Amino acid sequence: MELIKKARGGDQRSIARIISYAENETPEAAEVLQKLYAFTGMAHIVGITGPPGSGKSTLTDKLVKEYRKQGKTVAVLAVDPTSPYSGGAILGDRVRMSDLTLDPGVYIRSMGTRGRLGGLSKGTASAVKILDACGFNYIFIETVGVGQSEVDIVKNADTTIVVTVPGLGDDIQAIKAGILEIGDIFIVNKADRDGTDRLLMELKMMLDLNPDKAAWIPPILQTVATQNKGITELADTIIQHGDFLRQSGQLIRQRRERLETEIFDLIINRITQQIIRKQNEDGTFEQELQRVMDKEIDPYTLVDKMLKKIFK
Amino acid sequence: MELIKKARGGDQRSIARIISYAENETPEAAEVLQKLYAFTGMAHIVGITGPPGSGKSTLTDKLVKEYRKQGKTVAVLAVDPTSPYSGGAILGDRVRMSDLTLDPGVYIRSMGTRGRLGGLSKGTASAVKILDACGFNYIFIETVGVGQSEVDIVKNADTTIVVTVPGLGDDIQAIKAGILEIGDIFIVNKADRDGTDRLLMELKMMLDLNPDKAAWIPPILQTVATQNKGITELADTIIQHGDFLRQSGQLIRQRRERLETEIFDLIINRITQQIIRKQNEDGTFEQELQRVMDKEIDPYTLVDKMLKKIFK
Repeated sequence: MELIKKARGGDQRSIARIISYAENETPEAAEVLQKLYAFTGMAHIVGITGPPGSGKSTLTDKLVKEYRKQGKTVAVLAVDPTSPYSGGAILGDRVRMSDLTLDPGVYIRSMGTRGRLGGLSKGTASAVKILDACGFNYIFIETVGVGQSEVDIVKNADTTIVVTVPGLGDDIQAIKAGILEIGDIFIVNKADRDGTDRLLMELKMMLDLNPDKAAWIPPILQTVATQNKGITELADTIIQHGDFLRQSGQLIRQRRERLETEIFDLIINRITQQIIRKQNEDGTFEQELQRVMDKEIDPYTLVDKMLKKIFK
Repeated sequence: MELIKKARGGDQRSIARIISYAENETPEAAEVLQKLYAFTGMAHIVGITGPPGSGKSTLTDKLVKEYRKQGKTVAVLAVDPTSPYSGGAILGDRVRMSDLTLDPGVYIRSMGTRGRLGGLSKGTASAVKILDACGFNYIFIETVGVGQSEVDIVKNADTTIVVTVPGLGDDIQAIKAGILEIGDIFIVNKADRDGTDRLLMELKMMLDLNPDKAAWIPPILQTVATQNKGITELADTIIQHGDFLRQSGQLIRQRRERLETEIFDLIINRITQQIIRKQNEDGTFEQELQRVMDKEIDPYTLVDKMLKKIFK
């Protein structure tokens, strides 16, 4: 297939087109993904997450430049789950990366939410696979926010970087508690601000309480991304974590788990499509729904009925 | 059923037990939810969302007190989607509400994430129904954060309040863009801070750009929750929005849509359980997964195979 050949040869327009196929689930998507699968598995996939205002975009920007200096190719997926209805990511700060977009060794793409039921997570998973098969050495997945959807997205990564920042206010405790388990590397960005020492101490204390990380002790690094401070150290730490994952066998375990989840998600997605199709063919659903609205039957009874129809 | 009778009579321990059934999907859950369904539909369900640090908890606290003064009963579900692995919500700030917990007209419950695939959203939907059937006049769903999962949770609400706060930093644009569509009432909390006027202006501009809200123009209110400023006005505005929903017929439309989504989610959940059960019975999945890991086959081919087995 010509398109695959071109994409794997580094043609950015072909890469973009394939990702669009996958995002929009066009008929071509299945075939292309199927063919690309055999070439996946080489890239180091790095997730970057953290609360709004923590400077993730700038940090990613600088990391990309650092790896480019080392001669590595890099792709960035900027995922915006806070844009659930608009269908497109609004990421004005991506213009900051514009000096990178002329570099053929860098590919940057914004992704918004498509459809319901984990559409974004699925689209991101496909995009990662495509970029992996196209030979990028590093793939960064950058997400805005710290909710469940961000966690789902970050599950596509081998290494997860959690970015925090001093002075974010009351709910910081809740954030830290939630993302503690997913972080392989912690960053205190804007580390020239007041409150850095306190935040470092708090993070250290919370990580010390976490018993699950015996094999890899997540380091806490300080950066001032806008001034390019701490970026080289961060880039090295990411490489170290990659080495650890390979040598410990954890990379295989993680990827196996990820694949399992993905297969289930694919199945559920396919079944959902089938249910929607059956429901539309049949035409009785609207009447049944009205009966539930009128409290003539309850939703659980209706679900039993519908399931019997599907599996009859 | 004695438990239902007690819960509907206002016994808080019985209410708590039923919600736990639903959260943990015990065998009792289905029966209880089925029986309670006929009593639902009376409560005004209010979602409160906004970025970390915006003071949502304090605001909810004050609103509860305001409605209690008016003789209304209130339930609060504090949902924490940032805690995906721990299985329990860490909401230290809930202690602020402790003076309310002695009031029999107030029920407060924290909810964390259970399981995968929208578990939190489902648990919250069930809890709302239970509290509704138990006769609470107002049910507040308070969420931490602004991601997709928060949006999913807030979809359970009739009225959605979006709380913002001056001076949250760079990504505020992204946040505002994402939650613009879901807000019925916008709050600038901590409105005694610098930057309030600018934030008000920005919000107004963004809302003016939004064409979908012709019937109800979302008001932007200012509060200083810690000083109880603007709370009465907010409480009144919530009531006004409730009146609007009923009189315009939008309440029925929204609830119908919500019910439809819920029925689909129930079906998908049941099918997922069935797939997991089949896979475990069969025992061949592990071998197939290894073949995908070894790139002998691709995941899409495996999914096709599994689906044929399910629907054969």
